[in-house]
Amino acid sequence: MLNVKTTPVKGTNDIGPFDMEIMEFVLDKIRHIYKNNGFLQIQTPILENLDLLTSGDSGDNPKNMFKTIKRGAKLDLSKENLQERDIVEEGLRYDLTVPLSRFYAGNLDSLPKPFKVLQIGESFRAENPQKGRSREFTQCDIDIFGESDNIAEIDLIISAMQVYNEIGVKPITFKINDRMILNQIFSFVGFNNEEISDVLIVVDKIDKIGLNGVYEELIKLNFDKQKVDKLVNALCDIKEKGINECLNYGVEKNTIYNLQEIINCVNKFAPADFKIIFDISIVRGQGYYTGTILEAYYECNTFSRAIGGGGRYDKMLYKFLGYDVPAVGYSIGLVPCLTLIKEYNLLKNYKKNKIALLYNKDVDKSALFNKKKELMIDFDVTVMPEPKNYKDTMLKLKKLGYNSIYKMYDNKLITFDD
Amino acid sequence: MLNVKTTPVKGTNDIGPFDMEIMEFVLDKIRHIYKNNGFLQIQTPILENLDLLTSGDSGDNPKNMFKTIKRGAKLDLSKENLQERDIVEEGLRYDLTVPLSRFYAGNLDSLPKPFKVLQIGESFRAENPQKGRSREFTQCDIDIFGESDNIAEIDLIISAMQVYNEIGVKPITFKINDRMILNQIFSFVGFNNEEISDVLIVVDKIDKIGLNGVYEELIKLNFDKQKVDKLVNALCDIKEKGINECLNYGVEKNTIYNLQEIINCVNKFAPADFKIIFDISIVRGQGYYTGTILEAYYECNTFSRAIGGGGRYDKMLYKFLGYDVPAVGYSIGLVPCLTLIKEYNLLKNYKKNKIALLYNKDVDKSALFNKKKELMIDFDVTVMPEPKNYKDTMLKLKKLGYNSIYKMYDNKLITFDD
Repeated sequence: MLNVKTTPVKGTNDIGPFDMEIMEFVLDKIRHIYKNNGFLQIQTPILENLDLLTSGDSGDNPKNMFKTIKRGAKLDLSKENLQERDIVEEGLRYDLTVPLSRFYAGNLDSLPKPFKVLQIGESFRAENPQKGRSREFTQCDIDIFGESDNIAEIDLIISAMQVYNEIGVKPITFKINDRMILNQIFSFVGFNNEEISDVLIVVDKIDKIGLNGVYEELIKLNFDKQKVDKLVNALCDIKEKGINECLNYGVEKNTIYNLQEIINCVNKFAPADFKIIFDISIVRGQGYYTGTILEAYYECNTFSRAIGGGGRYDKMLYKFLGYDVPAVGYSIGLVPCLTLIKEYNLLKNYKKNKIALLYNKDVDKSALFNKKKELMIDFDVTVMPEPKNYKDTMLKLKKLGYNSIYKMYDNKLITFDD
Repeated sequence: MLNVKTTPVKGTNDIGPFDMEIMEFVLDKIRHIYKNNGFLQIQTPILENLDLLTSGDSGDNPKNMFKTIKRGAKLDLSKENLQERDIVEEGLRYDLTVPLSRFYAGNLDSLPKPFKVLQIGESFRAENPQKGRSREFTQCDIDIFGESDNIAEIDLIISAMQVYNEIGVKPITFKINDRMILNQIFSFVGFNNEEISDVLIVVDKIDKIGLNGVYEELIKLNFDKQKVDKLVNALCDIKEKGINECLNYGVEKNTIYNLQEIINCVNKFAPADFKIIFDISIVRGQGYYTGTILEAYYECNTFSRAIGGGGRYDKMLYKFLGYDVPAVGYSIGLVPCLTLIKEYNLLKNYKKNKIALLYNKDVDKSALFNKKKELMIDFDVTVMPEPKNYKDTMLKLKKLGYNSIYKMYDNKLITFDD
């Protein structure tokens, strides 16, 4: 017996049959609903060009990237003054957005315009493992390339609402804002273009540290006190009085009208338990957002939890094409959704009837597989030998959703009590 | 404009919407059929412990492994006489079987026995890219742990047949053999235990180099000419006269009976265009097989192509548990299946009706999304602005399976001719 660990790599998780059944049910709904809404699915590799992964505006992600080492003769460890770049070859993608941009630029001619696309796949980030945050996780993104009208935003949000609704994750509030609103306010209260991105990073922490915390941190960073006062006043005022108050802080009418149109239209299509509201404190970290930004929150009496988000990033394609392409994306937070579903038992009736077909040593194998075929019309059917420890086996089966057994050897169907 | 490549990493592929639709249809069938046959789906991480990946009997796979480099302070490139093991941290899995064994050993207590399991996921091998072989590829495996009876083999084969049948990949011949038959023959003609594994590697090439090639290569490797003569005679004889001829070359009755029982039972459940036969030339490379081995071939008039395989590997769990666990697995060759489906148009009616809903600048957005909702009952619906280049856009849409458009601005449904 070798000494081999049975635990998965630090920061990653195995997904057992019980959790996997929920996950596959949810993924199936996602695929079906997004396809029905006209999104075309594609897949890009997990291994991605390092140049691409480090060329963007993706915040901390490139820092937390997994990189693969060169192989064979290409790996020369004897070189003097060896640097990391001498020995690494490729990276594991940290999101689906950056590879999508590469794909779009490389396949422009064959894709419809606008291109409505669905991606489901693993991404990797070597962050310090925390509760609920894995270094390897499944992402579900929809994106629309080539539509500057807010029809794209409305389309994404309505589609995502339908998913949350059908997987039972509700009530939900979508909170929407616009980077242009934030930029116009920052500029109105006196910050210059160089300061704006640093201010944004601090304001992004508003839901963690509150408006006071934002104030203190901006002061600590030596921003002009008068400007900081003005900014915090503005945010406070807008938070209190609503979106139209933005007009008093240098925000253009068009920018406000755009958000209002999205909000009005989406609310018309919102199922019960869903709504969309303007929230000035929605910022979203990534540098690449250029317009609308939104986050979805599961809201119950006692807490509120982010379960998805997205926004418009009209400048990301520039580095491939030499011109901007309107782009807007939405990412369902699969892991937080699954956690909520399990914690609060949100999903009913996702299980198909399952039966275990028990045989003993003398079974006629053709008869066994005939019986299985017959039962497969109504059940998912597993075959297994008569268990030695009957009680223990029945407990395990019940836990995995089996609601009956059929004994070949005395032709008996037994249904478990609940 | 930066100079960023739009091609994927060497040896990997993007999967566009057209191919992805076929792939998702096939994966959906696979998930549904295997679940219906009682297999429980699980998922293990792509990142895997290096110790585990290098501890096994997995042929060339560990050599072709992708490894990730250590991060941050852990990476010390200034060390003298630096070795690869000093700087690598984890590996990308090269198959689903090795991680499954780890999962099973780590979760023994909560899993039913036998454990019937389905896995679908990416594996990675840094082989020289050839036609149809990607460095990153999706694997679909079913395995049964804890059943030594050939009921496990029958169950796997019947389930896999059902998949091939429903995705249109047929006619198919399953060719089955047993490592014990090969070992008993090798031993009967005079090879000792140390020689057997080398002989096996040569005999594995039989479908590429023929029986003559096997003879020549064994002679070249300095094996005793008399033994080689005997072996080639035996294989030739068995090939000609069938499985019972094995009895004349030292093979035990039980071993033969076991295969015959599988063949008889599976043939009873084989749909039209499916059959299973004994074939002494099936060997399969991996060292871990201990009993039954089988391969599935798509067979048409002009060629035969391997599209899946598997076998029994009763000793793999030993290194975790200190005792053997009966284990048998089958892997559908997803990539060769998809290639065949596309080349020979094997899959009919996998497409849902798709419609493009066209709008112009003055559209009432609520009316637009109302219309979309209405059409979604019968169609997958995408919304798009009235195209500038109408003809080009219609061509792209048709290629992607759109069979009609609806013009919001003059309330007109147009169905494309085929």
